Amino acid sequence: MHRSIAGDREMTHPFDPGYGHEPFQTLCTDYPGVDVYPPTRFRVEWGPIFHRGRLDGSARVVVIGQDPAQHETIVRRILVGEAGRRLQGFLAKFGITRSYVLLNTFLYSVYGSVTVAARKHPALIAYRHRWLDALFAGQQIEAVVTLGTLAAEAWQLWKETPQGQATTVAVASITHPTQPESASKGNKTKLAAAITAMLQNWNAGLQHLAPALQHPDRVTALVLYGEAFQDGDRLPIPAQDLPAGLPTWMHEQDG
Amino acid sequence: MHRSIAGDREMTHPFDPGYGHEPFQTLCTDYPGVDVYPPTRFRVEWGPIFHRGRLDGSARVVVIGQDPAQHETIVRRILVGEAGRRLQGFLAKFGITRSYVLLNTFLYSVYGSVTVAARKHPALIAYRHRWLDALFAGQQIEAVVTLGTLAAEAWQLWKETPQGQATTVAVASITHPTQPESASKGNKTKLAAAITAMLQNWNAGLQHLAPALQHPDRVTALVLYGEAFQDGDRLPIPAQDLPAGLPTWMHEQDG
Repeated sequence: MHRSIAGDREMTHPFDPGYGHEPFQTLCTDYPGVDVYPPTRFRVEWGPIFHRGRLDGSARVVVIGQDPAQHETIVRRILVGEAGRRLQGFLAKFGITRSYVLLNTFLYSVYGSVTVAARKHPALIAYRHRWLDALFAGQQIEAVVTLGTLAAEAWQLWKETPQGQATTVAVASITHPTQPESASKGNKTKLAAAITAMLQNWNAGLQHLAPALQHPDRVTALVLYGEAFQDGDRLPIPAQDLPAGLPTWMHEQDG
Repeated sequence: MHRSIAGDREMTHPFDPGYGHEPFQTLCTDYPGVDVYPPTRFRVEWGPIFHRGRLDGSARVVVIGQDPAQHETIVRRILVGEAGRRLQGFLAKFGITRSYVLLNTFLYSVYGSVTVAARKHPALIAYRHRWLDALFAGQQIEAVVTLGTLAAEAWQLWKETPQGQATTVAVASITHPTQPESASKGNKTKLAAAITAMLQNWNAGLQHLAPALQHPDRVTALVLYGEAFQDGDRLPIPAQDLPAGLPTWMHEQDG
């Protein structure tokens, strides 16, 4: 626990009101199951996890991630672990502290790798497009961030749709925030090098996006990453992104 | 798992939209913490769990339970385990299958027993009264069910308030649904006797409440309990009571 229990005494507890209004109510009632997401490739048994962030029209940045991590099945929001804290720091570097909405490429956690047949399933893509349609129709999005190659593909597929073609935003397709851990397989030297490479890639993304953001939550001078993560580069997941009543420690720890 | 994964293929998945509107948004943002619920008596570290059921004005029955069980911290709704399934069966006996709202006496899970000082804390009571005020102001409640002695006391305290005095409903203060397990401490003979006693107590409650219900969800002839639970006396927790995306098995198992 980073904060003491006493720290919870005085504060109010903002939370994410969730999916009580359309089109999100319908999107969370009718969603693809095992006929679209084969249980041999996806952990369908934990249920879908839909999003994190603003669904009220106030988002300026859309982030597309890959798939929910195991412990996110408890919190029921995506990108709340280490990848999420790194992303939170990335967004803050161009002044986005609350006006974002995060979606994944896949509703369910992936086993190992995803086959082409699975990820090109028309119903899987169509459902994801309904979410993207909703996010771009209802909000004044100025930038898109995709995390990893599958998310970049997901964005590309939507960009080819009529609504995608009619949408003009700055896009940065950046390295997935936990790619260094996946790629280095426990080798510390490789990990440090992979993080340095990722942060260089992220710096390019920042330099592309920062000028495009017309309405950041706070105006801030762009400070690029160094060779490794430093204090303040990883930020906690805000309580207002999570369901009502969750204790602080539940959104400050992985797994 | 009672239903196969294949069973999830075709169905839509109703869910509880939660606390996105007032007065519930404020009640779930500002709630008592350790200054009101001492961590020596309550499991404050899991966060508060607020309710289960209808907050949209359609409830006809208010149920007051005692405190959330441990595994309800995952589902974030109260009375979703064995006690909840027994209660679900009780409500169905007088035709209430969806028009209910469930509140607990305490926001947090109790350790052992609660001191008088703890349960009479004015801020604890005042917060609970704000919930009851909201439920009775916004909904057309015809009956109240309290589970166990502490819930009966909670009801009594609210009944003495101005809004409570102005409220006329049928009330049944019944034995808590898992009192037989607590009281018999693993002795099977005692358990069977305690269940028989509880079901007799519940039958009296049913006979009192059934005539008072003017708007049940379905009209049904009252069939009283026998000496033990029988098929259909325990019912599953409806998906529409739970947060979006939860898989079926998560609300069909305890712990």
